[in-house]
Amino acid sequence: MSKFRLDEVDHQILDMLIDNTRVPFTDIAKKLLISAGTVHVRVKKMEDAGIIQGSSLTLDYEKLGYSFIAYVGVFLHNTSQTKFVLERINQIPFVTVAHVTTGKFNIFCKIRAKDTKHAKEVIFMIDDIEGVYRTETMISLEESINDKKRLMHTIFKEL
Amino acid sequence: MSKFRLDEVDHQILDMLIDNTRVPFTDIAKKLLISAGTVHVRVKKMEDAGIIQGSSLTLDYEKLGYSFIAYVGVFLHNTSQTKFVLERINQIPFVTVAHVTTGKFNIFCKIRAKDTKHAKEVIFMIDDIEGVYRTETMISLEESINDKKRLMHTIFKEL
Amino acid sequence: MSKFRLDEVDHQILDMLIDNTRVPFTDIAKKLLISAGTVHVRVKKMEDAGIIQGSSLTLDYEKLGYSFIAYVGVFLHNTSQTKFVLERINQIPFVTVAHVTTGKFNIFCKIRAKDTKHAKEVIFMIDDIEGVYRTETMISLEESINDKKRLMHTIFKEL
Amino acid sequence: MSKFRLDEVDHQILDMLIDNTRVPFTDIAKKLLISAGTVHVRVKKMEDAGIIQGSSLTLDYEKLGYSFIAYVGVFLHNTSQTKFVLERINQIPFVTVAHVTTGKFNIFCKIRAKDTKHAKEVIFMIDDIEGVYRTETMISLEESINDKKRLMHTIFKEL
Amino acid sequence: MSKFRLDEVDHQILDMLIDNTRVPFTDIAKKLLISAGTVHVRVKKMEDAGIIQGSSLTLDYEKLGYSFIAYVGVFLHNTSQTKFVLERINQIPFVTVAHVTTGKFNIFCKIRAKDTKHAKEVIFMIDDIEGVYRTETMISLEESINDKKRLMHTIFKEL
Amino acid sequence: MSKFRLDEVDHQILDMLIDNTRVPFTDIAKKLLISAGTVHVRVKKMEDAGIIQGSSLTLDYEKLGYSFIAYVGVFLHNTSQTKFVLERINQIPFVTVAHVTTGKFNIFCKIRAKDTKHAKEVIFMIDDIEGVYRTETMISLEESINDKKRLMHTIFKEL
Amino acid sequence: MSKFRLDEVDHQILDMLIDNTRVPFTDIAKKLLISAGTVHVRVKKMEDAGIIQGSSLTLDYEKLGYSFIAYVGVFLHNTSQTKFVLERINQIPFVTVAHVTTGKFNIFCKIRAKDTKHAKEVIFMIDDIEGVYRTETMISLEESINDKKRLMHTIFKEL
Amino acid sequence: MSKFRLDEVDHQILDMLIDNTRVPFTDIAKKLLISAGTVHVRVKKMEDAGIIQGSSLTLDYEKLGYSFIAYVGVFLHNTSQTKFVLERINQIPFVTVAHVTTGKFNIFCKIRAKDTKHAKEVIFMIDDIEGVYRTETMISLEESINDKKRLMHTIFKEL
Repeated sequence: MSKFRLDEVDHQILDMLIDNTRVPFTDIAKKLLISAGTVHVRVKKMEDAGIIQGSSLTLDYEKLGYSFIAYVGVFLHNTSQTKFVLERINQIPFVTVAHVTTGKFNIFCKIRAKDTKHAKEVIFMIDDIEGVYRTETMISLEESINDKKRLMHTIFKEL
Repeated sequence: MSKFRLDEVDHQILDMLIDNTRVPFTDIAKKLLISAGTVHVRVKKMEDAGIIQGSSLTLDYEKLGYSFIAYVGVFLHNTSQTKFVLERINQIPFVTVAHVTTGKFNIFCKIRAKDTKHAKEVIFMIDDIEGVYRTETMISLEESINDKKRLMHTIFKEL
Repeated sequence: MSKFRLDEVDHQILDMLIDNTRVPFTDIAKKLLISAGTVHVRVKKMEDAGIIQGSSLTLDYEKLGYSFIAYVGVFLHNTSQTKFVLERINQIPFVTVAHVTTGKFNIFCKIRAKDTKHAKEVIFMIDDIEGVYRTETMISLEESINDKKRLMHTIFKEL
Repeated sequence: MSKFRLDEVDHQILDMLIDNTRVPFTDIAKKLLISAGTVHVRVKKMEDAGIIQGSSLTLDYEKLGYSFIAYVGVFLHNTSQTKFVLERINQIPFVTVAHVTTGKFNIFCKIRAKDTKHAKEVIFMIDDIEGVYRTETMISLEESINDKKRLMHTIFKEL
Repeated sequence: MSKFRLDEVDHQILDMLIDNTRVPFTDIAKKLLISAGTVHVRVKKMEDAGIIQGSSLTLDYEKLGYSFIAYVGVFLHNTSQTKFVLERINQIPFVTVAHVTTGKFNIFCKIRAKDTKHAKEVIFMIDDIEGVYRTETMISLEESINDKKRLMHTIFKEL
Repeated sequence: MSKFRLDEVDHQILDMLIDNTRVPFTDIAKKLLISAGTVHVRVKKMEDAGIIQGSSLTLDYEKLGYSFIAYVGVFLHNTSQTKFVLERINQIPFVTVAHVTTGKFNIFCKIRAKDTKHAKEVIFMIDDIEGVYRTETMISLEESINDKKRLMHTIFKEL
Repeated sequence: MSKFRLDEVDHQILDMLIDNTRVPFTDIAKKLLISAGTVHVRVKKMEDAGIIQGSSLTLDYEKLGYSFIAYVGVFLHNTSQTKFVLERINQIPFVTVAHVTTGKFNIFCKIRAKDTKHAKEVIFMIDDIEGVYRTETMISLEESINDKKRLMHTIFKEL
Repeated sequence: MSKFRLDEVDHQILDMLIDNTRVPFTDIAKKLLISAGTVHVRVKKMEDAGIIQGSSLTLDYEKLGYSFIAYVGVFLHNTSQTKFVLERINQIPFVTVAHVTTGKFNIFCKIRAKDTKHAKEVIFMIDDIEGVYRTETMISLEESINDKKRLMHTIFKEL
């Protein structure tokens, strides 16, 4: 698990991309007093190393009609089914996150749905996967923080 | 909570941006047989309407030395402290998500840390916030799914 | 706790009123081959005895915009506060049922709200009552049965 | 889920019917300074729209010998059995309410029984339904609030 | 469930027998200023009515080498097995009390054993009964109260 | 904790007294082919040694109007209050058994009450003791076994 | 379970060995003013009696790359499988301690692993044993005390 | 956290010491075909590097009268008290292990006691530490595995 070495320039490039993935490389170059080509090479290098895996849009799901968020804990009959069940869960687009966890649950998922009725359908989809023995749901009343940018800046500051 | 109306062109633009936020508008225009100006206007309109809130990098946290993920359930002494505690939690960059929830916990957080020792420090930071009465932690053994793109495509297909 | 004695005629009157509280007494009289005056006297007698406490409309809450149902378990600091807390809960119109219970909770409530956001407000109202120490919420995904008529008919059949 | 539009007159009619479903339409008409025919038309319209689903008697169950109330949480072997189990539960008249729920239980019921012995019989009826895997019971020591009228008045005031 | 009527003399006889079941009837007679024959008749009558079911020695189990007390909660696969499992439990002499209960457990037992090792054997005997799906044990660190006499005196005082 | 030594004759005497504490010593003597004086001496010796602590009546509580049995788990603010709280609990005659326990609860009680309403009063008496922080109640639906005689016979057989 | 009798000299020998199992017998002899032969005889005697079962190295597992400690609670389908499952668990070297327990779990284990990923593998090994129905894991954030020497000194002081 | 590098000879020395810490260095030397001086130097080096922290006797606690083992979960009022409470726990010799843990408990301890009564005293000592808010105890019915040697051999084999 040897870590890729990032230098100061890489950090500054990442710091700018974190806040706006669409910022033109020429803007980054101007700000950091380097050439746009250098920015391009550095970003390419970080993509090749797998540090930058891609970029994603931040949408307002509530405005898109998906205001219901819940966490679903999944109990399996047997942990040997973990991989199989995760593949099935992966086919449900309303599950946006899934973890194999310690403690009470075998798998722990985050789902987004349109409303209570839709959430019931999504939970039942999970419940109906072969090998799933029971689920427990915890409903979000408000998503107060969803922000990885603070973490990213902290990581690059301390590296 | 009247929803913003997106038409077919908006959906197709979003569909392309979801997979790569850095795709040039000229590429989108070419693909959709519209002008780059139209793409620009449409994206601007969706940003103004708050549907597109921004974009974020997808980084490989493990490669960056942050391989420890945990969910922390927070019990408050009193729910009237919810807002205050969330403000304090928001100052801890290692908390990437926080929800006000029903059920057992008052607040439910996702944290990323470097290792067990660091996780302990982060959990203790949360525990030490005034108004927090107890926390319970569930540790991720593997992040199997973390992908909102499937959901985004589904949303735009069904709109 | 000596029970009021109802005779066969009372049962038949109740059986008809259960299905439609607005059925005219003359219709009941005709069906049971007794005078409308008798029906009136019998109903009056059952009202005076406190057996019939009143009548209520059955509304479609979903059509009225109240589609969110949840059960809220309330923990008190001390059971000596039970009466006080129930009085405060009684001032929240969104709480339709409340029981003093054995087991985990001190008080157990049923609430109806407009949506997730409104439910959060109602739960916070309960949480903020002095003497309430914590609440736990269980959300209804579907109200499948809400029907006391079957019970009423059973009671009158067996009396 | 477009809501039916009720006007001020509808609200006032409902407000009077909520308190006494048997109030004569002529009384409502006199109070609201409209014709009895109008009252009739309005009520008919609300019934047709499904807003008024019917009316029910409020009985004193304790006087009728049914003083035992309990909540029964039902765990299913598999959620695909939900519909089947609810149909069976629906045949037990002592179950007055049943919800499909999130969290610990799959189905959550309210039962009314004569005494501890009878409650045991009712719980065992539920336990014996095919597909039911376990039940957990919480007993009511006192029904402190059971009143939807406050909610109804609130709804009509705010519409 | 009509209760047997006990008069003042019955109460006084019971009050004396509660404290010492071996007190001679002549002593009771003398104390209450009635004949020994009357005492005999009254006791016989209460035995026939099933109020007095017998008498039991109070032994010091610790001195007899049985110092280990535990409560064992039993989960069944299905409540239809309750009767069968209770018959099997009844064959284990170390189980002194067993109840069919609401809440978490189906059956709740009190056991007395010689020590930790013996307790394990007794718990395993219960676990091995067909139909028993799991047990949970709570160990007594000290039996602080075991006294029905206070209750008996209270009952006879208030009758 | 050296155990008192009982010989074969002691065992046989106890075996007879267990089934009927009122059996005359002359009957025991005849059965065991010893003198009544010997029986008397032996019983006296076992009483002095504290092995026989007394005797108690077995009453039918249901016939006496006490058909409600519950187990109440008590949480204390601090275990240093255990002794104090047990003294207060000891003043409530409806608590027939109390243990200091491991696991979830600090103290675990058995109560007998007349009905649900009375049980609520008894539970509230416990809840109101200073130092008690919360209670949890489990209700008995049926007392299926309450019999120490099988244990006593087993003990004497194996000694 | 008659205890082996140790005298003052045995205690002093043990007291020295506890702190350093490799201390030469001649050093012990000098300190206690006895012959080395006596030390040898005494230690041999305690080994033969099974009081001294052996000795073990205290290693720094963190320095050896095993910094992850967790407790794993194991639920069995049936306690009759306890012996079989323990034999299988005994084949997993990463399980250093295992107990048959009361309460929630049937078996309770302590495991040491290299990191989160390795811990997952060890937990899955346990989960995959036939007869194991579910496991629950609690992760150690810091091993603060691991020291039997204080206990050993206390035991020898009080003997 | 760079690991100390051990070579093949170190592993073989450790492998022998693990099974018997008192094995003479000359025996190790003979077996490994190296000089006793080399063994001495290597062991010294591993002690200086902190890999070997010492050695401990393995005693039969049951034979010494300490047959009672329990795990005690400790809840704190506030995690900021963790260090203080651990210092107090460290003064109780009957606590042999203590961890700061995730999940339900703040601190998790293993205790050894003489019997139930003694265990109660030890648990009460922990309960009485300032800052401790509640404890939960799980009792061991049998210590089935307590063996770090398998782990040690595995570690050295794989290095």
